[in-house]
Formats: sequence, C-alpha cells, structure tokens
Amino acid sequence: MSLLEKTIASISGQNTEVRNQAKERLDQLIMPHWALGKLMDLALDLAGMTETTKPSVKRKRIVTMAGDHGITAAGVSQFPTDVTVGMIAGFLNGVAGINVLARQAGAEVSVVDMGVAGDLSVFPEGAIIDRKVAKGTNNFAEGPAMSREQAIQALENGISVALELSESTDVFGTGDMGIGNTSPSSAIVATLCDLPVADVTGRGTGLDDEQLKRKIAALEKGIEINQPDSSDPIDVLSKVGGYEIAGIAGLILGAASLKKPVVVDGFISTAGALLAGRIAPASRDYMIAAHRSVEIGQAAALADLGKDALLDLNFRLGEGTGAAVAMNLVEGAVAILTEMATFSEAGVSEAH
Amino acid sequence: MSLLEKTIASISGQNTEVRNQAKERLDQLIMPHWALGKLMDLALDLAGMTETTKPSVKRKRIVTMAGDHGITAAGVSQFPTDVTVGMIAGFLNGVAGINVLARQAGAEVSVVDMGVAGDLSVFPEGAIIDRKVAKGTNNFAEGPAMSREQAIQALENGISVALELSESTDVFGTGDMGIGNTSPSSAIVATLCDLPVADVTGRGTGLDDEQLKRKIAALEKGIEINQPDSSDPIDVLSKVGGYEIAGIAGLILGAASLKKPVVVDGFISTAGALLAGRIAPASRDYMIAAHRSVEIGQAAALADLGKDALLDLNFRLGEGTGAAVAMNLVEGAVAILTEMATFSEAGVSEAH
Repeated sequence: MSLLEKTIASISGQNTEVRNQAKERLDQLIMPHWALGKLMDLALDLAGMTETTKPSVKRKRIVTMAGDHGITAAGVSQFPTDVTVGMIAGFLNGVAGINVLARQAGAEVSVVDMGVAGDLSVFPEGAIIDRKVAKGTNNFAEGPAMSREQAIQALENGISVALELSESTDVFGTGDMGIGNTSPSSAIVATLCDLPVADVTGRGTGLDDEQLKRKIAALEKGIEINQPDSSDPIDVLSKVGGYEIAGIAGLILGAASLKKPVVVDGFISTAGALLAGRIAPASRDYMIAAHRSVEIGQAAALADLGKDALLDLNFRLGEGTGAAVAMNLVEGAVAILTEMATFSEAGVSEAH
Repeated sequence: MSLLEKTIASISGQNTEVRNQAKERLDQLIMPHWALGKLMDLALDLAGMTETTKPSVKRKRIVTMAGDHGITAAGVSQFPTDVTVGMIAGFLNGVAGINVLARQAGAEVSVVDMGVAGDLSVFPEGAIIDRKVAKGTNNFAEGPAMSREQAIQALENGISVALELSESTDVFGTGDMGIGNTSPSSAIVATLCDLPVADVTGRGTGLDDEQLKRKIAALEKGIEINQPDSSDPIDVLSKVGGYEIAGIAGLILGAASLKKPVVVDGFISTAGALLAGRIAPASRDYMIAAHRSVEIGQAAALADLGKDALLDLNFRLGEGTGAAVAMNLVEGAVAILTEMATFSEAGVSEAH
C-alpha cells in the first residue's frame, strides 16, 4: 500500500463512547445547561477526536504550506509572484501576521515549501521544511495544473509533515501562502460542490470589478479545458489545484490518521479540507473550522463539510491566521471540560 | 463635585491623532489591505483609547460584580437565590466558567459584592471586594428596586473599584453574577431603547414558555408601576435596575475616565454599558463589545451603543466569560499593531 492508501485506511471517526463521557460531565458543570455554547460543542469534538476526556492541547502548531501558481499568468492576482518568497522571509523573521497571532496563542509556526517557484536557498538550512514537488503549478487555464502523480506526491508530502511533526504537536492548525491561490481554491470548490465559478470566486487580495471578471473567466476556461472529474478528488486537485492546497489536504489526512485535531484556517485551507473530506470522509471528524473568511467560496465548502466556523472577524489573509486565533478557543474548550467543577463537586444548588 | 460628577467630567473621547497614527501603520503592514479585519479595527480603538500606538494590554482583569434581585420573588428565574453565594464560592475556588476562561486568557478575576443578599462572611477576609450597597434590590414589580441615593452610591462604588484596580490593570473586562439579573437588564434595555419588554426578554438560565410569559408580565408590571424616566438613566437604574449592573456601569465610567479599555461581556454587562453610555456618552469610546449573547435583549442594547460584538459563541452565562475569551482578541489586535512589519521594513513588493 502507498502512504496515501495506508493513511486513508487508518482514519476512523471520533470515539462516540468518550464523546458521551465528556457530554455527561459537561451537562453537570456549574452553570445553566450548555451556557458556554460553541466551546462546549468543541469540547465534545476534542474528546471524541483524542479519545480522552482530558485532551492535551498544550503543544499547538500552525503549519503554513507555500506554493506558487501558474494561473497568475492570467492576471488573477494584484501581487507579483515574488511576494511568496518575500512573505516566507517575513515568516522566518517572525514579523508576518501568522507569527504575531501564533505567538499570542502560544503556537509554533512551521513553514513548508510545497511548490514555491522562487529561490529559497537564501534561507538558513532547515528553516523551511522542504517538500517541494515542483517550482509552481502550470497555468491551469491552459492545461492541467500538475500530473496525477504530482498530486499524489503532494498529498503524501503533506501526510509526511503531519507524521514528522506529530511527536511535538497536540493540535495542528493549517495555513497557506501562495500568490494567486484563491484561484485554484475557487476552482476546486466550484467543481467539488458543483457550483458556478462566479458563485465561489471573490476578490482575493483586492481585485476590482474588471479584474474579478477576468479571474472568473480564467477559472471557467480552466475547468472547461481540463474537465476535472468531480467524483475523483485527486483528479480535481491535479487539474485545477495547487501544491500547498494538496499539502494542507495531506496534513489533515495525516493528523486525522493520528487522531489529532486540525484547526482549518480560511478559504484556501477549507478547499484543502474539502479535498481531504472527499478522499477520506472520516477525516472530517478531526477538522475544526476556525473562521468565516471574507472570500465567498468558503461558505459553500464549509456547508459541504457540515462545519460551522468558530470566528467571524473579516479575515482574508490566510497564512493560518484564523487558525491561530481559534487556538485560544480550543484551549478554552478544554479548560471548560477539564477545570470547571460540577454542581455536586461545588455543592451548588441546581435549577429547580 | 461628587465622585460621579467628577468622573463624568473627566471622560473625553478617543485620541483622534493617535488613532490616525495607528491607521497609517496598519495600512502598510505586510498583507493585503486590512486583511485582518476586525482585529485591525480593534487595534485602532485601542490606540485611540490609550493614546499610544504601543498600547500595553498585558495586565488583564475581569471584574465580576455580584448582586441579588428582589424580582426573583415573582418567579423570574429557575435557580434559587442562594446560588449567587454558591457561585461566588466557585469563583474563589477557581472552578467556575469565568475562572477557567480567564486563566486561558491570562486574566485575573476580581469578585465584587455590590449587593448580595446571602451571607458572605464565610469567605476569607479580602477575598471579595466589598462594595455592598444593600442585601439585594427590592422587588421592582411592586416598587422601585432601590432609592436614587442607592443608585448613585452603587455607581460610585463601581467607579471606586476601577480607580482602586487601575494601578494593576491595563484592560478591564466586566462580568456579573446575580440570580434573576436578566430581568432588570431587560427592563433597563426596554426603557432606555423604548422597546416592548417582550422584544428584549429572553429565557435567562432556561425558562420554558409559561415561565417566560410570567417573566415578561412581571417586567411590564414593574415598568408600569415605577414609570422610569427614559431620559434620566439614574432614574431607570433606581426603578428597575440592580446593584451589580450599577457596579458594571460605574466600572466602565471609571475605566473611561482613566482612558483604559473595557471589554464588555454579555447581556447584563451590556445593560450596564447602556446606562454608562447614557450617563456619559464619551464613555462609549472605551467599550469593546466582547460577544453576542443568546439573550435577545443584548442586540438592541449593542445597536443603541453602536457596537458590533467580536465573538458569537452561543454564550449565555455571564460572569465575564465572553469578556475573558475576547481578551485574546485584544492581545491579538495589539500584536498586529506593534509586532508586524510594514512592506518597506520587510522589503516585500506591494500590490501593483
């Protein structure tokens, strides 16, 4: 069996028995019933994922997957491609959005090169986890973004990152960096959710009306030319996807196989989660939707996954920033489950 | 001048110049423009409040104000009044919702007795900040909740708590404990926002349809009997208010007079914030709305204050729990403002 097949085979859903044990305790905590709402729902999930009513969530890690996109040749982004490398420098220097929000949440940041086009040899040895499949995807407005073999390789590279980091990680968070990557994300969501491209395509980093029209036309053309098979997620990934999106999908599959929670960031990460969910439906049991993105395509992907986002802060940055903020909620959920007293433990009268 | 008058006179709005300086920096940070949305809006506010582009938010404190309510005699709550004392025991033992969520956020919790009916002498000397005005309010379904003098005293007690704790506090959070306290909160919001009681009255800790009807009838009767003057917030507070709600309003006024941010918790705290905003309109500039409560009356109060809540987690507990979770967002907002690099600092290409 390949690593991908082995990983898929080893993913099973949440532990219902432990979920029920957690529910029993949460039902009795000193407050009106379920008065801490979504954090208690999250606590149930965390218990079910980790198979313990005392989940450990101390060691938090955002994995920011980077890749470039041939489709930028079609003018789908306002930023030049070399910004991917510039932002990676920012990540390594600790001065980007993900760094400061991860620090606030007490999370580590790991940067993975899944398919950056630019030169990364300027950075210190070992600063970036190297899982490069190719120097950027092909322009999928003119042909497939990558081969099927490359798609599988990228998924397996993502899985291998989860396996490698799992020793030092209790909770994973996903993140992305890649100029132009809302384009493949929209194409993936349009194909897998069978929706018109225009319904799931937003302004990315800030396109105007004319630029948005051009982006939609490029994605429509890409889907028309490549004819991705919506019943085959790996075909969709190879035709209209991206390496960092594949890496995110692989990371989620790997984490799910290890029964580790994965906090899924915004639009690009949710496109990766959608792929992971189609490849291994039980992996959805390990996904936590961090936040509602400004990008309109994310809502369809979240609905398809049956997920409700925890936060809605008008973020549209990616990098893992929403996942980092949501790590605080993961900690809060566990604190409720493990540190609050029950009515009988505290000797407080219950509702009559 | 009385403490209340002096405090009102010393409250002025946010510093526009410093807000603009903060905006100039935020506009240039290495990300698409304003891509961290609400946290950047919050960063502007924090700079404007504290009059610095490097606000300090390290020392966070939730002040949980406790009081009891004569209106519980009208059967408006499912919980017996002695639960107020039981919950205070939980706060002091560190096992209640507010304790665990404040710990997650790195915030201290201070418990203030504003008007608890039960015996608090069982607790260690100094564990509770004593600002008791009376042993619970009168049943406002039958007459005023308190005298005008008591209302002013309660406001001043809240102010004095802010003054006393300000030496060791960068950011305040409000919280409440008091069986039955959604009732005065709904009565305050109905009166000050000129809305029907039924539109701003919810199920509190879990009333059924019949009990909710009874609660609404009691509040309508209370407003009918007392005829609170909606143009006079202190009259409204004294007729249909509560001591912990007055304490929260006073805390907000005191914090605003010191130019300290106040994170306002859920429904009861927002009722207190509404009072503070009517007493000193500029105090609204120092309020941060933590979360959207399940209690329906909070939305009207937030709209009246012109505030948009940061979180929406289906909380309906109070105690300061929503404010505690939101402290993470306050920290995140400051981290964005003070720790991220600009495009030119990082040498990254901007949008073309």
